[in-house]
Amino acid sequence: MKITDDERDAVYKTIFARRDVRREFEPDKIPEEVLMRILTAAHHAPSVGFMQPWDFIVVKDNAVKNNIKTAFESAHEKAAKIFDEKVGKEKGEKYKTLKLEGILEAPIGICVTCDRTRNGPVVLGRTSIPEMDLFSSVCAIQNLWLAARAENLGMGWVSIIENDDLQKILGIPEHIIPIAYLCIGYVSQFKDKPDLETLGWLPRENLQSLIHYNQWNTEKA
Amino acid sequence: MKITDDERDAVYKTIFARRDVRREFEPDKIPEEVLMRILTAAHHAPSVGFMQPWDFIVVKDNAVKNNIKTAFESAHEKAAKIFDEKVGKEKGEKYKTLKLEGILEAPIGICVTCDRTRNGPVVLGRTSIPEMDLFSSVCAIQNLWLAARAENLGMGWVSIIENDDLQKILGIPEHIIPIAYLCIGYVSQFKDKPDLETLGWLPRENLQSLIHYNQWNTEKA
Repeated sequence: MKITDDERDAVYKTIFARRDVRREFEPDKIPEEVLMRILTAAHHAPSVGFMQPWDFIVVKDNAVKNNIKTAFESAHEKAAKIFDEKVGKEKGEKYKTLKLEGILEAPIGICVTCDRTRNGPVVLGRTSIPEMDLFSSVCAIQNLWLAARAENLGMGWVSIIENDDLQKILGIPEHIIPIAYLCIGYVSQFKDKPDLETLGWLPRENLQSLIHYNQWNTEKA
Repeated sequence: MKITDDERDAVYKTIFARRDVRREFEPDKIPEEVLMRILTAAHHAPSVGFMQPWDFIVVKDNAVKNNIKTAFESAHEKAAKIFDEKVGKEKGEKYKTLKLEGILEAPIGICVTCDRTRNGPVVLGRTSIPEMDLFSSVCAIQNLWLAARAENLGMGWVSIIENDDLQKILGIPEHIIPIAYLCIGYVSQFKDKPDLETLGWLPRENLQSLIHYNQWNTEKA
């Protein structure tokens, strides 16, 4: 099936306009058919040995969101201390001013997991790199992110939560690994650039300096 | 920036038409501007704390490809033994019949890596889940995959290679982790379904059975 130039440009537009959203969520409900479309896109991600190790826990309940928020706050406080102690007071203070999640504001949270035991003990393609199943769940997350953006939905990945807390709060069995807690909803705006770039936390790297030819660092095209 | 319905449909078309390609590569050269477009898309993936931990080693040299192929063959032989011993002769025999890479046929290979030390010892958002930097490189890979498909380029992720071999062959420093070796090129066709589904290796999971509401497995919508 051929992708036309216009369709290609739409894919690039979506990739470049995707943001990690934490501050601009609106309360509007996400229609059920839109939610199903973005989950179907996630489910069509590549997976090692066609393992499809993912599950999706859709969180709409406010009591559950409150528990997730409490878990975030505890992990966030620990993280702030690490910045203070290992990087210095200045970066630590700046860290504390950042808004890093939209757990309560986003109408929907989705926890994406990885079942490392799915489809048997030996997985085609996972024999050399055991993390390949985790990576498959991440591919599903990136599909979900781009599908959400294509639906004009914002999404943010909240990684500052301990997996133990997520497992307890969401009742996830011990052998299933939480990979991400995602906040999803319509937004007041999509920013032109990542917040961390705009706020001067880090600059965007120069792509050319990240490309090597045939060998690490020894040849340029 | 608003994504229109037509643009959204183009994103979905690309997501559903993406395949993990191993058998259909054509020798046609990939124009430099197309290569730069797909790498730019990869570089605009989300990353934890805007860390951008990825590098891209573009492999066009046949001698390098031959070394990669040899490394694949050695890992593949070991994997076949694991299937024989742990799953049974029947699955082991079937495994051996599968074509799992297009290393020599694809005009370009790209190794995507993760520099875990990039931008300092403490990374915003990596304080609870140390693997977040590896996951960022995987997001870049999925962007690259969809951008390639949007350019009507096939891509295959060859995970059956030991990282030690990749590091030696490509001269990758010890502290940099290879995440994927990807084969990219124009193709004679894109199949409608994943090969492993068509060949009866595994069926596609039923999405509904993978969706939970508020708690693992206890509520349905």
